[in-house]
Amino acid sequence: MKLWDKGIPIDKQVERFTVGEDYLLDMVLLPYDCQASAAHARMLGKIGILSETEVDQLVGELKNIITLHEEGNFTILPEQEDCHTAIEAHLTEKLGEAGQKIHTARSRNDQVLTAMRLYSKDMLKEVRTALKKLSLAFHHLAHRHPETPLPGFTHTRKAMPSSVELWATCYRDALSDNEILLKALSQLIDQSPLGTAAGYGVSLPIDRDFTARELDFARVQENPIYAQHSRGKFETSILHGLAQVLFDLNRMATDLILFSLPDFGFFRLPEAYCTGSSIMPQKKNPDVLELLRSHYHTLVGLESGLKTRMANQISGYHRDIQLSKGPLIQGFQITLACLSIAEQVISALEVDPQRCREAMTEELFATQRVYELVARGIPFREAYRQVARDYSGS
Amino acid sequence: MKLWDKGIPIDKQVERFTVGEDYLLDMVLLPYDCQASAAHARMLGKIGILSETEVDQLVGELKNIITLHEEGNFTILPEQEDCHTAIEAHLTEKLGEAGQKIHTARSRNDQVLTAMRLYSKDMLKEVRTALKKLSLAFHHLAHRHPETPLPGFTHTRKAMPSSVELWATCYRDALSDNEILLKALSQLIDQSPLGTAAGYGVSLPIDRDFTARELDFARVQENPIYAQHSRGKFETSILHGLAQVLFDLNRMATDLILFSLPDFGFFRLPEAYCTGSSIMPQKKNPDVLELLRSHYHTLVGLESGLKTRMANQISGYHRDIQLSKGPLIQGFQITLACLSIAEQVISALEVDPQRCREAMTEELFATQRVYELVARGIPFREAYRQVARDYSGS
Amino acid sequence: MKLWDKGIPIDKQVERFTVGEDYLLDMVLLPYDCQASAAHARMLGKIGILSETEVDQLVGELKNIITLHEEGNFTILPEQEDCHTAIEAHLTEKLGEAGQKIHTARSRNDQVLTAMRLYSKDMLKEVRTALKKLSLAFHHLAHRHPETPLPGFTHTRKAMPSSVELWATCYRDALSDNEILLKALSQLIDQSPLGTAAGYGVSLPIDRDFTARELDFARVQENPIYAQHSRGKFETSILHGLAQVLFDLNRMATDLILFSLPDFGFFRLPEAYCTGSSIMPQKKNPDVLELLRSHYHTLVGLESGLKTRMANQISGYHRDIQLSKGPLIQGFQITLACLSIAEQVISALEVDPQRCREAMTEELFATQRVYELVARGIPFREAYRQVARDYSGS
Amino acid sequence: MKLWDKGIPIDKQVERFTVGEDYLLDMVLLPYDCQASAAHARMLGKIGILSETEVDQLVGELKNIITLHEEGNFTILPEQEDCHTAIEAHLTEKLGEAGQKIHTARSRNDQVLTAMRLYSKDMLKEVRTALKKLSLAFHHLAHRHPETPLPGFTHTRKAMPSSVELWATCYRDALSDNEILLKALSQLIDQSPLGTAAGYGVSLPIDRDFTARELDFARVQENPIYAQHSRGKFETSILHGLAQVLFDLNRMATDLILFSLPDFGFFRLPEAYCTGSSIMPQKKNPDVLELLRSHYHTLVGLESGLKTRMANQISGYHRDIQLSKGPLIQGFQITLACLSIAEQVISALEVDPQRCREAMTEELFATQRVYELVARGIPFREAYRQVARDYSGS
Repeated sequence: MKLWDKGIPIDKQVERFTVGEDYLLDMVLLPYDCQASAAHARMLGKIGILSETEVDQLVGELKNIITLHEEGNFTILPEQEDCHTAIEAHLTEKLGEAGQKIHTARSRNDQVLTAMRLYSKDMLKEVRTALKKLSLAFHHLAHRHPETPLPGFTHTRKAMPSSVELWATCYRDALSDNEILLKALSQLIDQSPLGTAAGYGVSLPIDRDFTARELDFARVQENPIYAQHSRGKFETSILHGLAQVLFDLNRMATDLILFSLPDFGFFRLPEAYCTGSSIMPQKKNPDVLELLRSHYHTLVGLESGLKTRMANQISGYHRDIQLSKGPLIQGFQITLACLSIAEQVISALEVDPQRCREAMTEELFATQRVYELVARGIPFREAYRQVARDYSGS
Repeated sequence: MKLWDKGIPIDKQVERFTVGEDYLLDMVLLPYDCQASAAHARMLGKIGILSETEVDQLVGELKNIITLHEEGNFTILPEQEDCHTAIEAHLTEKLGEAGQKIHTARSRNDQVLTAMRLYSKDMLKEVRTALKKLSLAFHHLAHRHPETPLPGFTHTRKAMPSSVELWATCYRDALSDNEILLKALSQLIDQSPLGTAAGYGVSLPIDRDFTARELDFARVQENPIYAQHSRGKFETSILHGLAQVLFDLNRMATDLILFSLPDFGFFRLPEAYCTGSSIMPQKKNPDVLELLRSHYHTLVGLESGLKTRMANQISGYHRDIQLSKGPLIQGFQITLACLSIAEQVISALEVDPQRCREAMTEELFATQRVYELVARGIPFREAYRQVARDYSGS
Repeated sequence: MKLWDKGIPIDKQVERFTVGEDYLLDMVLLPYDCQASAAHARMLGKIGILSETEVDQLVGELKNIITLHEEGNFTILPEQEDCHTAIEAHLTEKLGEAGQKIHTARSRNDQVLTAMRLYSKDMLKEVRTALKKLSLAFHHLAHRHPETPLPGFTHTRKAMPSSVELWATCYRDALSDNEILLKALSQLIDQSPLGTAAGYGVSLPIDRDFTARELDFARVQENPIYAQHSRGKFETSILHGLAQVLFDLNRMATDLILFSLPDFGFFRLPEAYCTGSSIMPQKKNPDVLELLRSHYHTLVGLESGLKTRMANQISGYHRDIQLSKGPLIQGFQITLACLSIAEQVISALEVDPQRCREAMTEELFATQRVYELVARGIPFREAYRQVARDYSGS
Repeated sequence: MKLWDKGIPIDKQVERFTVGEDYLLDMVLLPYDCQASAAHARMLGKIGILSETEVDQLVGELKNIITLHEEGNFTILPEQEDCHTAIEAHLTEKLGEAGQKIHTARSRNDQVLTAMRLYSKDMLKEVRTALKKLSLAFHHLAHRHPETPLPGFTHTRKAMPSSVELWATCYRDALSDNEILLKALSQLIDQSPLGTAAGYGVSLPIDRDFTARELDFARVQENPIYAQHSRGKFETSILHGLAQVLFDLNRMATDLILFSLPDFGFFRLPEAYCTGSSIMPQKKNPDVLELLRSHYHTLVGLESGLKTRMANQISGYHRDIQLSKGPLIQGFQITLACLSIAEQVISALEVDPQRCREAMTEELFATQRVYELVARGIPFREAYRQVARDYSGS
């Protein structure tokens, strides 16, 4: 039975279409919704809408739901549409009137906003931790090869001397710097939408500061229209932040794919990380790296599909935004998987110092020759032209 | 066991990461792969690599797999990676040597290309049929209301007289015109990649015309590098074509959402197509229309995520492209669901001629007044200015 | 003076904001608008709204404008907003009443649609011609090197034997196949919107077939709401088609950048096509190829920015679509420039057969060894495993 | 003459293609490059590569260039490619040897990075200031209408009571919250790339802390490979941040376009902000609002086109990134123009309290009726169903 059921039969195909995957995706959100519902119940107790007993019953049963869910014993039926309905149905079945009261002074609109935000806060924390670990793996790689040179390329051509340390440190720094953006995102979303109801507040004397504190939000998102407006907008920024992380992995993987090619041989990926071909018996393919590279584009698509969905629309909730749940959850799952795999890859990565040294051919030092002339008092541009003559026509 | 298994243990997390969702998505491709494998087996028989008995065994068992699959009794194990491996494993288990021979003169690269293309050809046919049906629903709607006027808007402001017929015919025509693009796409992909193997052909005297004919392809895609190059490229064009269809639905839904608003009331959606609110008892919400509108953006995201995945890469297969399967399948499924729902909506749509007529206020006829002055010999721009004076300052 | 001037002063900053770049972009559209205006004038003559003399005057003066424009002597003032206003102003200044009559039975909405479509038809023709020339350049390249082998790569690793001929033919075929899509686009847009006025037709007995024939359109776009609806939609498909062409150039350029790297040396770009570094005297950089590669992404961005602009909007003209002119014009100009440069590059490209042959190392022939075992009666999968043993552990 | 000129003639068409619009776009960057060049010169003086006199000459002449540029008397020739070359050429022409020395220990790669970053820091500051002003305009609007109610919509249907204050405060808060992201972006890019040269540092004892301090950077971007890696990445995040600002304007404009429609009439845009139609004399069109809405999509396209350009590429500079200059500059210019226009619009916006009050129909209060029953002890869900009965079937 739906929360808004009024006795009018709904077309079955229409039901399937409107529910979509929500009943599956919401399994991820369920514990967060239980947590928020418990805070809401305590607040309703505080302002006298629920009795102390009712609050205890509800909070207790919400904990039960979390446990059932952890044990794999709680399901959301397609006809229930979402976790919010499944939870209210369960509470009402178990507790009777107390269950029928839990939805006082809230709407599914602020409920899902709150659950999504608690979920996002958690996941951002996980991403930031994973980033630190991966960044550290690069730091260790740099330290394992303090002396190994590497040709530096520009325009995919040899340019100047570089080193394994410089290369690894680049990714250490790039990955750490993502923290600036991710921290800002954590801060941006750290405001409680609970109590904004359908997007225009409620005419009941609710205590939004209380629920915000209970749920460990840094502040209350005061304006209820803004709470709705930020749905989709915040998710887009999160997906952008995650995409930026995967952009680093994209380039790192591209480097490794090229420079582990036998023609270069600077790096080597252990065979446990390689896959084969169904037809060519000699192949050892860097599929893992290719998928790390490719998932950046998955994130690009997720961000793209989300960022215009709510554009050209008036204020207030629209069902369109339902389709943002999937992309956000997928975005977090992909990013976390990639960070974890990347850490393994970098820890297992082998460097071949011999091949690296052999690749340090003389043209990489042409600029140093210019600087030697500069040291002898020749103006830079003139020195450049002198050295350039040696390379003309070749 | 993997097709490329050489006895080296694979890290479990890496395995999960590389397999991804393929073992699930490939359930959609499985019958197409069986069909292509049967054609391939017959061709191997024709050129003497398989005996007649072997061909019969293989073709028979491939039919069995299709039946098992239809009955829900065929599964692809995650460790099998994909349907190609599951099929070869099944054939080898049932038939022994014949199974071990089926992969002669092909690679998974051309196998998946062929299966995807057969699948896409089928789905494009379904989309084109669904388009015709929806276009017809608009045609009927136009005919049900030959006389009902409707205000025409520009800049979201009343502009000139329009009509229900004109409105419905717009979508009839827009939807039909998609046929031009979809037909071109069907033609573009109607070329057989089977026999291009890993992307460089094989050194065996295979008969590619034979398999192309068997699989009802219009032509052979001769160049094997181009076969690989077209993977991702063709899918992107298909997603573009599907997105263009959903663009029509996006606008149609936007029109209906606004014009079924009580303040306008030109259209009415039967309650069986409406949903309610968890908090506001009065609400009848056009969720179905909102999701029709929103799915356009899903397609936009799918196209976006795919179109750059293979950019900036050298020729030849890369594992990156594996991640194109999901978007294509999702794109087809969403488009077909939307077209079917839209047809229902348009067939059930109610028009309120009374409200339509009431909305035909005088400013809609201002241009006609200009033309009356033009008929009396006043140059257009002068007539325009005369009529404009009546509206200035208001 | 604006066409809609009613004597109310417009804020200057607002004027600049609304006009944007239109007065510049419209220089490209001007000749097409003159052509369409002449057809419109002749039609107005045919239905008796203009006298024969007026028609002759208008058609003559429109030809004058085209000449003035060709000589660089016609400008559109920012305060005129667009070419439509500049043309009407010029006609009225030169011809008086006839100029004031030219806008009878049309709106800027159908005027710009018509001009854009005539322009697009022309540009698509140019793109298709340029495609043929570039395709031919690849054909010639293939024929210049009938015998030169090339390693074929998968996963950026050596896979199987390929050849210069196979590589060049891939692009010949890929480029030609774009014709299927571009031809469909030409057909799709080949319908005359002239006479749809503001998007709801006019209450005058105009002859739309006449103007369609005069302007060489294959058919009339009957439904005026659809005419407006197709604006943005058609442009998006055109940008998609152009992006697909640049996708081929993107990959071709990526191949050449890698394989002209001294470590491979299969191809060589003459120095006239290379640029240098401001600091490193030895550098010969393939900037031309890099920009060919990069412009694919420019097209991706143009398509992206356009395809959602008109989404989530009701039927009828919105000023938003004004911002589609720039992307379309830019898209055509970039594509034509890239095709022309690519043709030069391919014609000048040098192949080093010696380096190519040296790169044909034994692992490229591993699959052929499998097939030799197959020829001796060993089932493929068994033969594969035998050969694979030689490569394990290496 | 190019900085890398070695006497080999360059094909003219190729030159035009590679230079592109850089010589025009760089007019925006020129003062920033002069500023950075002066800091670089002082540093070269400090480490003894330039004499005190040379430093004074260079710093003086760089100031001259800034003045010439401000007066419109400095041009970059297409054959000079960019501002870096034009500046060095000017310095060499005026100062001889000192000019030939200025490029010591740097590359155009770090020069353009530095100039872009100084420019971006400045522009972000301007955007943040403009945001505050617009946010304040909404704050004032809220205060001008403390009592005016407004219907609150969900699903584009009346939902609950809202108010002009609530509406205006939503945008005040949304706009202010952008500050969190923009501040993080300012912090992210506030690191000096000067001295990273071509992306691998230089073998000279340069003092990067010195130039960082001189240019008011918060820190040095130590790793030179990361400096290159961050090009494109940082710009993408900036474009994302700007797009998020325009997302707020997109929704605000959409609200105003609908609610200033005569059928609602809650808001009114003064005629000085409206435009007319070339055919319909009665029209007053909200073009300004439509363009504010539309420019969000321009930013979406700019971000899209940039974010994949550098994907799938190995580390180190590639010419591809040249094409990021235009999008970034365009993004800043559009955003600043929109913020300024939006501020004007909001300051001039008229509210019609009468029409607002008339729109407060009874269904907006249905949830309040539920709460009245709740106050009498009826559980929420039961109360909801009681009130719902009054609306069923209507």
